[in-house]
Amino acid sequence: MWVGRRVAELPTPAFVVDEAVARRNAERMLQRCGALGLRLRPHMKTHKTLEGGELMTGGTRRGIVVSTLAEARFFAAGGFDNILYAYPLPFDKLEECAALAQRLEAFQVLVDSRDALAQLRRRRLAHGARWLVWMKLDCGNGRAGLRHTDPSALELARAIAQEAPEEVALAGIYAHCGNTYGCSGVPEIQAVAQATTTAMLEFMGTLRAAGVACPASSVGSTPSCSHPVADMGRLTEVHPGNYIFCDLQQVTVGSCQLGDVAVRVLTRVVGHYPQRNQLLVDCGWAGLSLHGLGQLPTGYALVEGHPDLKLVALTQEHGHVEPAAGVLDFGKFPLGSLLALIPYHACATAAMHPVYYVHAEGTVVATWQPVRGW
Amino acid sequence: MWVGRRVAELPTPAFVVDEAVARRNAERMLQRCGALGLRLRPHMKTHKTLEGGELMTGGTRRGIVVSTLAEARFFAAGGFDNILYAYPLPFDKLEECAALAQRLEAFQVLVDSRDALAQLRRRRLAHGARWLVWMKLDCGNGRAGLRHTDPSALELARAIAQEAPEEVALAGIYAHCGNTYGCSGVPEIQAVAQATTTAMLEFMGTLRAAGVACPASSVGSTPSCSHPVADMGRLTEVHPGNYIFCDLQQVTVGSCQLGDVAVRVLTRVVGHYPQRNQLLVDCGWAGLSLHGLGQLPTGYALVEGHPDLKLVALTQEHGHVEPAAGVLDFGKFPLGSLLALIPYHACATAAMHPVYYVHAEGTVVATWQPVRGW
Repeated sequence: MWVGRRVAELPTPAFVVDEAVARRNAERMLQRCGALGLRLRPHMKTHKTLEGGELMTGGTRRGIVVSTLAEARFFAAGGFDNILYAYPLPFDKLEECAALAQRLEAFQVLVDSRDALAQLRRRRLAHGARWLVWMKLDCGNGRAGLRHTDPSALELARAIAQEAPEEVALAGIYAHCGNTYGCSGVPEIQAVAQATTTAMLEFMGTLRAAGVACPASSVGSTPSCSHPVADMGRLTEVHPGNYIFCDLQQVTVGSCQLGDVAVRVLTRVVGHYPQRNQLLVDCGWAGLSLHGLGQLPTGYALVEGHPDLKLVALTQEHGHVEPAAGVLDFGKFPLGSLLALIPYHACATAAMHPVYYVHAEGTVVATWQPVRGW
Repeated sequence: MWVGRRVAELPTPAFVVDEAVARRNAERMLQRCGALGLRLRPHMKTHKTLEGGELMTGGTRRGIVVSTLAEARFFAAGGFDNILYAYPLPFDKLEECAALAQRLEAFQVLVDSRDALAQLRRRRLAHGARWLVWMKLDCGNGRAGLRHTDPSALELARAIAQEAPEEVALAGIYAHCGNTYGCSGVPEIQAVAQATTTAMLEFMGTLRAAGVACPASSVGSTPSCSHPVADMGRLTEVHPGNYIFCDLQQVTVGSCQLGDVAVRVLTRVVGHYPQRNQLLVDCGWAGLSLHGLGQLPTGYALVEGHPDLKLVALTQEHGHVEPAAGVLDFGKFPLGSLLALIPYHACATAAMHPVYYVHAEGTVVATWQPVRGW
């Protein structure tokens, strides 16, 4: 019902995606990876939509990463395949993983423990299918994964590859360089990218020396894949995700420029409060998330075209906007007028919206429905 | 498919509601208001479900507050009536408000400006129906509303009541004492409740003296309505919302006890990382929200039964748990084992879940589907 109409007519708050910017972001990453001889296995967690996955895979619908089983089911039902569920194997979801592994050409899981491998072996696949297993390494990010220097990493990789080759196959090693989010600027990002890549290459060497065949290695994060180091070309693939949308966090870290941010939350002025020099807008944390808290000089977001405004407080459905200095000219912001918020964290903001309005130069061209839940 | 099964079998993260606790919370508030001679007009924004509304209205499905038009549509379609859309009239949603006003016995809107009143008058209702309008007062909360001492408050109330009585009726005055959330303990809560109530009563006196008939006055917030002051009995109604679930914020403020918190997020252990003395669990901010940040000694939530644990970090789908002190006994938390997180902010946590699993002593008895969007 909204296609063909102007985004300025949308009920607010509304999550809008500039299709041209998102497409350019997707194509640039494909080109960048192609130039390095790397496969791009884009992560779906930021947008969780079939249309976003289509753009990010260049139309192939093959070779993606997901963070939840709900995403895995959704993308599988939408015709995607070669899906890596890059999450420490959740034992409560083993049966559903088995069903996907039987049904898809390549549904792949991730483990970082012997217990998880034992779970897979207890749930043997039928019809000659094997579990396709990536091993998670922690190359400095400090979340999931075995440290690449930990002797148990080699032991686990060997067990995955060799313990029961008719049941389980080692598909690759996987590391998330989320520690790039602590960086400021390209040199710092590239230092983390280099350290992660070096760790992965060293571990691949360890595997070769130990006679453990491992066909793939994958690192990722939008910052590192936006500014790859040459050595990343010696890996087989990368798996960034946020880059299709980008956000102020990526701008702050140094992944991209403000013009690369494809998303906004449209909001309207719903109140004037001169006694406290504030506007209220109809976007609270329910439409934006709290992720901008304390991160930006402009408060929870940046009001596009108004760098002199601050979004200083959010409750569930209200945002408080005030000038950085001086007295607000309320006449410039009549009740009902539209503002566009550039979000700090696109993944978190997208997660608050049941529909995304995709536009070309301000005209809605599509609505995308993300999957939710687990 | 989950009814009849144990909550311990649910895929995680899972938002679970203890039906007995939620029902007791709902009944207590009805009794408390009844004892004061106050109508309870419960707010739906915390749970956004028909079932929650049924409990909170004592089965009448009459007399509720909503914060979004999506909630208004949803509850109207679910057989609710006497619905107050307690949000500064959003001009982009006027047509839909008019449709609800024509269809329901009593769909009510809220304004705090002459501009909003003018919008209503430009969209006159048909068939002799009148806009039922509440005027929002700011009695110290500092969000929407006119200050009760502001001469323009009386002017606006008079205009609503008298300017076009065949088109618009003044239904009442409304204040949200959200400033109770800055309180610590019952005396502070009651001081805010008293100040808000006194302001409302003074303004009702001003209206009477000015010959402006105003049939209703409503204040609310879960803290103030959990510990009402006697003067609140001189108002006509109250509109708390969070109390059906409660959360650690309410416990911290002093609204309730830990045993009154009806909700949990169930999560499972997905990783052991002895090198950093941490567990990973499968609930990140996507299942909990970031609202606990910096609010609790136990991190983003309280792990039920384990006050010695801290949920120290959240990414989208991962939570990092570590002991407050000492070395974690990983043997007590095997991979796949279940933990229950008590959330800091139930409204924010509920907003992350597409389904709530409602249980009686650990057996799922219902699933509730909240409405989302705007």
